[in-house]
This record gives sequence, C-alpha cells and structure tokens, in this order.
Amino acid sequence: MVPKEIKNQSVPQSHPRYSSLKYRHKIIEGMKNLVVAEAGLIAHGRGECFDYIIGEKTNETAKIAIKAAVATLLTAKKPVISVNGNVAALVPDELVILSKLLNIPLEINLFYAKEGRIKVITEVLKNAGASDIKGINEDMMTELNGLESNRRKVDFIAKADVVMVPLEDGDRTEALKRLNKTVIAIDLNPISRTALWADITIVDNIIRVIPEMIETTKQFKKLHTNELIEIINNFDNKLNIQKTLDLIIDYITKQKEEAFKILE
Amino acid sequence: MVPKEIKNQSVPQSHPRYSSLKYRHKIIEGMKNLVVAEAGLIAHGRGECFDYIIGEKTNETAKIAIKAAVATLLTAKKPVISVNGNVAALVPDELVILSKLLNIPLEINLFYAKEGRIKVITEVLKNAGASDIKGINEDMMTELNGLESNRRKVDFIAKADVVMVPLEDGDRTEALKRLNKTVIAIDLNPISRTALWADITIVDNIIRVIPEMIETTKQFKKLHTNELIEIINNFDNKLNIQKTLDLIIDYITKQKEEAFKILE
Repeated sequence: MVPKEIKNQSVPQSHPRYSSLKYRHKIIEGMKNLVVAEAGLIAHGRGECFDYIIGEKTNETAKIAIKAAVATLLTAKKPVISVNGNVAALVPDELVILSKLLNIPLEINLFYAKEGRIKVITEVLKNAGASDIKGINEDMMTELNGLESNRRKVDFIAKADVVMVPLEDGDRTEALKRLNKTVIAIDLNPISRTALWADITIVDNIIRVIPEMIETTKQFKKLHTNELIEIINNFDNKLNIQKTLDLIIDYITKQKEEAFKILE
Repeated sequence: MVPKEIKNQSVPQSHPRYSSLKYRHKIIEGMKNLVVAEAGLIAHGRGECFDYIIGEKTNETAKIAIKAAVATLLTAKKPVISVNGNVAALVPDELVILSKLLNIPLEINLFYAKEGRIKVITEVLKNAGASDIKGINEDMMTELNGLESNRRKVDFIAKADVVMVPLEDGDRTEALKRLNKTVIAIDLNPISRTALWADITIVDNIIRVIPEMIETTKQFKKLHTNELIEIINNFDNKLNIQKTLDLIIDYITKQKEEAFKILE
C-alpha cells in the first residue's frame, strides 16, 4: 500500500511500487534540472496519496471524463494545453504525441517564474518533439484579469475557447472560468477548487491520463461531429465527481476490513 | 479545501491555509539546508493529503492513541525517540521540550545518509536546546538485523524497549517489531505498514501531535504507575485505526454532499 523510499536508482521492475518510484525519481531529477519547482515535489506527494485512495488505476469515472475531454478538444475552435513543470517532467513525450494528434499547441504557464525555467522546459518539450510551443515569447504575452500569480501571463490561452489544465492551481481555474473559457482539468484531488470549477474534471494520475487520451483521440477522430457533441452533452461533471467520491469511500471501506490481514 | 501554493514568504496569518503553508515553507527551507531529503518533500505532500481527509485536526482517536503513547513512554525502561529530517525541520523545539519532560533521548536515524546531514540535524536539535542526542557517533553504532537501508545503523535504539518513530518507513517498523520492541508510530496514513505494524499508531499531523503529547505528559506525570498501565491495557490499536478510517469515510461522505456548495 505505501511506497518505500527510493533506495537507489535501480529499483527492480518487479518492485510492487516500481511505477510510483520511477515517477518520483523523475520529479526529483526535474527539480535538480530546474524543470520542477520545489513546491512541485510537495504537490507530487499530495497526488501520490490521492492516487492510492482511488486505487492507482484509471477508474470508470475517469474514462468517462476522458471521453468528454477528447470530444471537447476535437470540436473546439481554439483549444490549448497548458504545461507546467511537473507535467513536463513526468510525461513530455506523451504530451507532445497528444498535442500533435489533436493539432493543439502546448503553452508553458508556470506558477513559479524562477529565472531560466521557461527555457529548460522549452528544451524538454522540444526534445520530446514539440514544434508548436506557446508562452515563451514575452512580446506575445498578455495578462489574465483577476489573477495575481505569475500564471496571469498568457499567450495563446488568452484567445482560447478551451483550455486543458493538468495539475492546476485553483486561482487560475477560477480566472479562466470567469473569462467564460471551457476548462478541462486533470486533478487527482476530486474536491480541489480546480476539480469543482472545471467543466470536465479527470480525476486520475496524469501518467495514465495522457496515454488514455491518445488512444481515445485515435478512436474519436473517426467519429462525426454530431457524435462528439452527443458525448459532450451526455457528460455531467458534478455527478461524475460524486461517483468518484463513492469509489474512494468504497476503497477505504474495503481497506478497513482488509488492512490488517497483511499481518496475519 | 486545497492549498494554494506559497506566493511569497510573507503569507498573512489570516490566510485560511496559513499553517499548512508555513510548514511547507519550513520543509523547503529544510531541504535547502540539507536537513530534509528531497524525497522528504514528496513525503510531506503525501502527509498533507492525508491530513485533509482527517479534517486537519487531532481527532478523538488520535487523542486516545496519544494517551496510550505517553503512558507507555512514562512506564518504559529504556525509551527513545527517533528523529528524521522532516521532524527536525518541522517541530525541533517541541520535540526537545517533550524529550526533556519525559527524560528520553533523541536519536537521529536517517533513511538518506547524505554527507553532512547528521551534523546539520544535530545543530538544529542543539539550537532547540537538546542535550542528549544519540545516533551521532559512529563508534557507538550497531546494526539492526533484517534491515537493509541506512536506518539499520542504530545507537541507543538497539537497547531500547520502546521506540517512538515519527514519520517512519515500513521496513524499519517491521524490523523493530521483529526485535520485540514496542513501537509508537506517528503517521498520517492510517493503513501504511508502519501504522499497521506499530503497537500504538497516532494518526495525526506531527505539528499537532507533539504539543498534545507535551500537555498529556504534564498531566500523566501526576498519575500512579497502575493508572498508566490501565490506560495502556485499555488501548486497542486495531480498533482505533478502524475508527479513524470511519472518520475518513464520514469526512469524504460529507464532502460529497457539500463540495459543490462553494460554487453556488
């Protein structure tokens, strides 16, 4: 259930927490390379805990939200995917594949504007094959109303109708909603402000979400616009989040009965 | 519900997440000073999440476990409190007050044996007023059987009958139990291996636990040994953990009903 710390960098693949330890290592390396902010490590840990209590898998409710998200991105006029340090450290290759499949730009948008971070994150995305990266040229930037943090500085996001925000802070999600943008959030905390404010909330780990979105995009590209719109119209975010909370309650109830069996 | 990131270092005390942000800042500073390991930031984040779902307060079940813990420490023959980097960064002053009140040594015991860490943690504890610090002289150290990590190297812990392990890894708790030691754990995750293996599991945030233990110690010092033993005998750790899981289930059930009200 609970991860051991990384003992060394060659954790065997057979280790029950291999995947979790691998991504933890990526985040720590990301911090050393300036890609990830220090607070990004704490945020990652918070995510790990929420991941445990959803069972560390893409639940049915997440799959439903992913379908609505992909349908929305495929029918949007000016969609954009926001990228922060943790996302760039964890899933750069998958994110670039998704953005190319959807023909959507990636925009670097950071909470912590430490000197040089935009440059190293740009490098990470370029190395992963990205060609259309926004948020790197100060001359193209404008400021979002109602947002104090560094995240107020936006490029393509200012004009976008749909913004996908993986691993987001609540302030920006609120600001984007107040500007009438459609927000797609990826957030392991089902009751964060971002999760509650977003139009479509995918409660799942980004390392599983982006590959699942890639597969869904491949399928949905074959659908007619009417079919995509039906998928969007049938989606109820509030209900979906409440069902996710039911899954968490079920998981903890099960743990209550089973946890001590490991000692027997 | 969900913390905003630290915008600057002068977060106003009126901020709803002031306490959480203050301790997050201490952990980040601790990493910069070598007191906290990089993985300690991730562990801190994991703790933050578990703290939310117990309602960020010392619940009745934690108070019961704290009473059993203090009674156990007061009646032990050779008790010791293990200290790691996160504990030293978060509550050094309180920990020293508790160890002096109980007349129990502090032993530095680290998972990550980075050069110089023991020295800076010793400094932190000395600055907080500690006089009896173990685990700093290699000549006094022995190795615990059945433990591979750096934590196998112990000093007074080898001889102790009762070991209090705040923020622990499961491997060491198992090793201590196999050596028939009584283990008191402070762990926000009620179903971690440490939480399940320990004799007394305090599921609460260390920043609240140590002050509560100080107050309880002051009261319990007035009790007779028989009264302390009765408190210990009446304590059922498994039942107490299961009641804690019930509290978490109640909390999430309540959130399911109330979360969306903030948007109305």
